[in-house]
Amino acid sequence: MREPILLPLDRAEITAELGGGTMRRTVHPSGLRVLTERMPGARSASIGFWVGVGSRDEQAERGDAPGSLGSTHFLEHLLFKGTPSRDAYSIATAFDRIGAEHNALTAKEYTCYYAKVRDEDLDIAVEVLADMVTNSVLDEGEFETERGVILEELAMAADDLADVANERFFEAVFGDRALGRPIGGSPETIRAARRDDVDRHYRDRYDPSTLVITAAGAVDHDRLVEQILEALRLSPEARWRMERDARPVRRAQPDGTTAPTAAHAADAPAVHITERPSEQINLLIGTEGFRSNDPRRFAFGIMNSVLGGGMSSRLFQEIREKRGLAYTAYSFGASYSDAGLFGMYAGTAPEKAAEVLELSRLELQRIADGGITEEERERALGQISGSSALALEDSDTRMGRLARAELGSGELFDLDTSLERFAAVTAGEIRAVATELAERPTTAVAVGDTSRARL
Amino acid sequence: MREPILLPLDRAEITAELGGGTMRRTVHPSGLRVLTERMPGARSASIGFWVGVGSRDEQAERGDAPGSLGSTHFLEHLLFKGTPSRDAYSIATAFDRIGAEHNALTAKEYTCYYAKVRDEDLDIAVEVLADMVTNSVLDEGEFETERGVILEELAMAADDLADVANERFFEAVFGDRALGRPIGGSPETIRAARRDDVDRHYRDRYDPSTLVITAAGAVDHDRLVEQILEALRLSPEARWRMERDARPVRRAQPDGTTAPTAAHAADAPAVHITERPSEQINLLIGTEGFRSNDPRRFAFGIMNSVLGGGMSSRLFQEIREKRGLAYTAYSFGASYSDAGLFGMYAGTAPEKAAEVLELSRLELQRIADGGITEEERERALGQISGSSALALEDSDTRMGRLARAELGSGELFDLDTSLERFAAVTAGEIRAVATELAERPTTAVAVGDTSRARL
Repeated sequence: MREPILLPLDRAEITAELGGGTMRRTVHPSGLRVLTERMPGARSASIGFWVGVGSRDEQAERGDAPGSLGSTHFLEHLLFKGTPSRDAYSIATAFDRIGAEHNALTAKEYTCYYAKVRDEDLDIAVEVLADMVTNSVLDEGEFETERGVILEELAMAADDLADVANERFFEAVFGDRALGRPIGGSPETIRAARRDDVDRHYRDRYDPSTLVITAAGAVDHDRLVEQILEALRLSPEARWRMERDARPVRRAQPDGTTAPTAAHAADAPAVHITERPSEQINLLIGTEGFRSNDPRRFAFGIMNSVLGGGMSSRLFQEIREKRGLAYTAYSFGASYSDAGLFGMYAGTAPEKAAEVLELSRLELQRIADGGITEEERERALGQISGSSALALEDSDTRMGRLARAELGSGELFDLDTSLERFAAVTAGEIRAVATELAERPTTAVAVGDTSRARL
Repeated sequence: MREPILLPLDRAEITAELGGGTMRRTVHPSGLRVLTERMPGARSASIGFWVGVGSRDEQAERGDAPGSLGSTHFLEHLLFKGTPSRDAYSIATAFDRIGAEHNALTAKEYTCYYAKVRDEDLDIAVEVLADMVTNSVLDEGEFETERGVILEELAMAADDLADVANERFFEAVFGDRALGRPIGGSPETIRAARRDDVDRHYRDRYDPSTLVITAAGAVDHDRLVEQILEALRLSPEARWRMERDARPVRRAQPDGTTAPTAAHAADAPAVHITERPSEQINLLIGTEGFRSNDPRRFAFGIMNSVLGGGMSSRLFQEIREKRGLAYTAYSFGASYSDAGLFGMYAGTAPEKAAEVLELSRLELQRIADGGITEEERERALGQISGSSALALEDSDTRMGRLARAELGSGELFDLDTSLERFAAVTAGEIRAVATELAERPTTAVAVGDTSRARL
């Protein structure tokens, strides 16, 4: 069987062939890592600046103090607001004038700033992103304005009942652990946020040793590394000492299988209800899943595809196609360095909610009891293989794959290697994964007009 | 100046070079049209079956009769539910086992069934899509189940306040005209829908003369045409007479500039309010815009980019960046064969809604009064050029471009030709477009907790 490409932190240079392109990786003495994948024939490139810090790294409130919850996301917003050499308008203009697709995102274990541009515009993207990530000034006036923007962003999310259900589900499954907290904080923590605290977060956490820059598409590795180093040294006010002798760091990746703490679910009510006026109830049901490098993730991928991964999946067929109870019904997994989550989602009329919840539970149990058919296994392999091939035509997918491998376990699976792993999964392993999930304490969340639902 | 590629309905074969690929078009004696764009180096293909019938072609209610509103979208759902040789599960399985990205969409002037697949899977996509579009049985039992699914889809949309605002805005701007109606019908019309009426809609409207099949990516035109013809003749129960001598039809495209009827807005209240419990008010303000082939569409494109087309746009800068009043603020246009719509959107706290509405109005008026700067014009051209180039790397964008040209005006603008048109727009033309929009009767829509808003 093929092996993944290893990305040891003490190895300065790596070159490897991936399906369709060449991967190169450079670790700079400062700890900065640059990974690229050149795609032959590409006329555009995606580049991302990934910082290995996410919402789970924030301080929770203690006593009456609100803590720093939401500061990672607040910082992400502020990096667009200006550096000594570029104000917010210049940053916006720099991307818009080249028609770049660009944005940023804060996740639980990382923060990412990215752009997709025509090949001839890559220099501009590198320069602006490097300046933003390393030289932002976090102006006090901009901080106050951005507080308003973030409160509006939270208000928008609060009006989206599927979003609300998702946040409640993470809270319910992970309990008090940091992974259970909403990424953006709450209106209370955002109203209480202070510029100096966010600035300290920036100074403490943004560092060459936590920064991973990945690019894919029409990209020349040596030239990009040179450009990045030049850009990072460009500003006389630069906060970063790129020359120092530092080691890159990576979040700890426990080995072996996930043992969920589960204590949180023991005394929890069967269904966590959030009452809101609505036409539909947004339902989520699930439990702890598998961490990023759990060896059972390939078995889980096939089980999840069969259970709720497409129009032919069991959940879609039972809930929508046979009974017309929902427009949307699917299952999913989310993985982090030390824990994971498994869930089944459906939106349905209040009077049908109890039936949909029960059907979802039953479908998972059916796989735990009887496994899947050979035809289903083959279909899942075909689905994973086809959809992965299509996704990897986009440079942004490849750019993200490099970053998650580098920030995560340090193992890069190219398409053929991961397909081999999926193909090697046995029927017994698939069933075992379903059994494990079905036996864990189940958490359900319902958001909407639950007064008409018998939950 | 370059000219667009013309697609006359009586021309059986056309071949033309587009930027990056070769376009070919075949009009079959039955009226069926097939257009392809071969993209060198592509390993996948997008294919769409486009039928030139949309929600605006439905019958409105008369007296107490509910009419056929929503039947086009209902039909779109039913085509996934089975043919004499494939049941719904077989259709779902056929796409899932190859990992296809596939879906369907109903719009106001067309309906589309599409798939994106690896090159080796294109045959399967052609065969299944052809069978679905031409041979669906519309089983009575499946009809009842799907009624429930569509009611859930409408309920989901009713819980999404931005969706609700969008539908209200179309209603407010277009008044009683068919373009103003929601695409999916209403819960009342869906509850009242009868299988035989939808079946008649299918038999009357789905016909070789209204069907346009487009494909882009790794595609061989001659082979595809052959495959399609074979697939359409395959079933002994086939409803379609492919051999008959028919003329392809195209929706009428009035020439000249759009003269909005405007009567609807004369006595309308300043702000159409839909009261819903919410954190944010979803605001839309605008008026009638420009039809698809209006010669001013290039001037509008630049004006819209400067007004509300990105982070550096005037609306984003004024509403979000300077004042922190919203997370999202942008402007947009929608175009149809004989009419168009222009709107500005923002989501904001109730107490800020009046200010945001006023700022939006003012920004449009500022361009009408003073035009845009040369720097803004250049930036807009760069944005349109860069973002179009990135979008056209995807075969689905090219597939859709072919179809909209064929179903619409019959003129295909490749990237260079349209960029020339944008570049040729004068400052006076841009200002004239803003003036025209600013002088038309304005319609505003607010959805959310308006009790706290002074609207």
